Amino acid sequence: MNDFFKLISPSDFVALFADFDPLPPEPVPTSLARGRILAETLVSRELLPPFSRSTMDGFAVRAADTFGCSESETALLTVVGEIAMGASGQVFSLGPGQATRIWTGGELPQKADAVVMVEYTQAFDRETVAVFRPVAPGENVIRAGEDYRPDTVILEAGSRLRPQDLGVLSGLGITDVPVFRRPKVAILSTGDELVPPDQTPPPGKIRDINSTTLAALVEEAGCIPLSYGICTDDFDRMLALCSEALDQADVLLLSGGSSVGQRDFTQRVFGAIPGSHLLVHGVSVRPGKPTILARQGNKALFGLPGHVASALVVFTCFVRPLLRQYSGLGPTLGLQTVTAITGQQIPSVIGREDYVRVSLVPQDAGRPPLAMPVYGKSGLLNPLVRADGLLPIGRDVEGLDKGIEVVVLLFP
Amino acid sequence: MNDFFKLISPSDFVALFADFDPLPPEPVPTSLARGRILAETLVSRELLPPFSRSTMDGFAVRAADTFGCSESETALLTVVGEIAMGASGQVFSLGPGQATRIWTGGELPQKADAVVMVEYTQAFDRETVAVFRPVAPGENVIRAGEDYRPDTVILEAGSRLRPQDLGVLSGLGITDVPVFRRPKVAILSTGDELVPPDQTPPPGKIRDINSTTLAALVEEAGCIPLSYGICTDDFDRMLALCSEALDQADVLLLSGGSSVGQRDFTQRVFGAIPGSHLLVHGVSVRPGKPTILARQGNKALFGLPGHVASALVVFTCFVRPLLRQYSGLGPTLGLQTVTAITGQQIPSVIGREDYVRVSLVPQDAGRPPLAMPVYGKSGLLNPLVRADGLLPIGRDVEGLDKGIEVVVLLFP
Repeated sequence: MNDFFKLISPSDFVALFADFDPLPPEPVPTSLARGRILAETLVSRELLPPFSRSTMDGFAVRAADTFGCSESETALLTVVGEIAMGASGQVFSLGPGQATRIWTGGELPQKADAVVMVEYTQAFDRETVAVFRPVAPGENVIRAGEDYRPDTVILEAGSRLRPQDLGVLSGLGITDVPVFRRPKVAILSTGDELVPPDQTPPPGKIRDINSTTLAALVEEAGCIPLSYGICTDDFDRMLALCSEALDQADVLLLSGGSSVGQRDFTQRVFGAIPGSHLLVHGVSVRPGKPTILARQGNKALFGLPGHVASALVVFTCFVRPLLRQYSGLGPTLGLQTVTAITGQQIPSVIGREDYVRVSLVPQDAGRPPLAMPVYGKSGLLNPLVRADGLLPIGRDVEGLDKGIEVVVLLFP
Repeated sequence: MNDFFKLISPSDFVALFADFDPLPPEPVPTSLARGRILAETLVSRELLPPFSRSTMDGFAVRAADTFGCSESETALLTVVGEIAMGASGQVFSLGPGQATRIWTGGELPQKADAVVMVEYTQAFDRETVAVFRPVAPGENVIRAGEDYRPDTVILEAGSRLRPQDLGVLSGLGITDVPVFRRPKVAILSTGDELVPPDQTPPPGKIRDINSTTLAALVEEAGCIPLSYGICTDDFDRMLALCSEALDQADVLLLSGGSSVGQRDFTQRVFGAIPGSHLLVHGVSVRPGKPTILARQGNKALFGLPGHVASALVVFTCFVRPLLRQYSGLGPTLGLQTVTAITGQQIPSVIGREDYVRVSLVPQDAGRPPLAMPVYGKSGLLNPLVRADGLLPIGRDVEGLDKGIEVVVLLFP
């Protein structure tokens, strides 16, 4: 029996995240809240618009005064004033047969109930306007509160705040919004062979790639990366660093070698952190099998594979959904997908979920792109740069034929 | 003849942007370059990996020493040392019949050309390992430079930098990248009726919605918003503010009333700016017809409609493509799209391009969502909050029947 069967399945892994709580809400200025997730349902506290407004340039009228008028039989109305933009229209009160000049957005005078568009009027004399098309009551007018009234729901809890949502909140005078706090994610690379990217590695060493990649992935997911640099494989030092990171962060991403010894080492470090317990020590996914998840309170500790290609898959499939859960979005992938056609046969093995890197080759208009696997030895980086996304192949599927319709998860 | 025919078409409008230059490149630390656009093609300056590396835990060997071995007839090799992680393997030089212990990522010793996985070995005595499966030369090894060599192209100019791209650049020691400068976009709301969002509007006035919305749209497009607040309709003051904004910014977004008088006013202000000339004064699109575009050198001045719903469409269709052109991405929409089915008949008028706000109603799995128009008087805000995207209806199309397959542009 394939040893992948002894591991947790990807769906069971993600199911664990429902037990993690979204982070506590914090108030944020509306102007800075783009992309944040509402922690509470917001209701209007006031009328919008605050007064009955014209939607056209023209004349505010009592609609009844225009009934029956036509080009041959105009209604003649006395213009008692002009409502300048930003001025109160309510200083006027229309008597029968009276009108005021008004602009788009202007406040209607008292007793007015409609606006005649300027196109359907003609100046008759200095004080009189001729109207040649009747208006119904309410025509070309937005009534006070027609858009929002006190207690109208504006946005539900869990909504991601888009630019237009922020605009509407501003219009309603809501200048601070309660949103879920953004997860802070500590990033620590382990391995005696690593040097920082700005150093020239001496013989036997290479530059750290995961710190940069993971920090950018964390940012892309709307979270805050905290860099803890590189740690050598020293138990006490790593335990101290991990403890310090967990004091500051909600999530720790420890990436290191995927070998059995290295994995045991990470498990021992995680196990030595007070209050922590191991939830996952291996998942039936490729790449990414040696992934570790531990939990301390509502905080999560991930042990990620050392190869950046594997770490990217694990981040996409598991870290990202947990970050979304913390952020108030639920434990979803949140990735754009595209339908594609396999450009060649793609082998897979029953018992594990494969995430195959693919590049998308555009076809003629109207036809889905071809998904071409981007193979390469697991330590190579250039296939990662050439890939557009990941093609998941289920654990019960023994490879895909050429020409099959598939769904590709696009890298963000 | 419909007066929309006298206006510039949306495609001719966007075609103007090809004449604007991408902004000049600037060097940015690789760790901060997520989402930025490469201004130059990057090539490797060195070998990656810098040395031949093992891809497995096991024994570095001379492959020929394992040829013909099997479980019944093992190859016995003398273990002359262990290459610790991060240590140089080249301090060893294998003679015939010799091997070293090696870990994933370790540097191969001199004269070694393959690695035997530990699973296919057994300790024979303290100095000898028994190998029972042969390896071919190069097996379980990434050769020095197999990933990147000097002058290998890493990423082409115009690439958007993703997390994994930044990781690979870090691995190659490229800690600064030349990217196009991000556009700075000045935002100015005009109208005597406007007050800032944190004020309670007196009679006749309303809060400014466009400043907040446009700033968030600019940010979402990867650019830098500069807020210039609210300006009353005073020619000299507005001219001074616009001139100041253009000194600081690459683009000016002036949003104001859509009425003819207001539009003339904006045109006069733009016309009074030294070196500017008008490119667009009206476009056959709804909403958004009264849009203005002027140009000063490589800078752009937009006059946007005052209604936020119209301003959002104009931003999406025209401002965003120009910002992408400045950013090095070309004058494209850059929006996610989704195929949907019209949930009801949607009227349109020949001669203009309509952008109908729609909400997407999920259907059974495998079926595209229904696109339901979100109607509402043009001054209302709540339809904007309820909409998921825009459904474009071409200028030669007289409405859409119910049940038609359409492509919806999703709001970002």
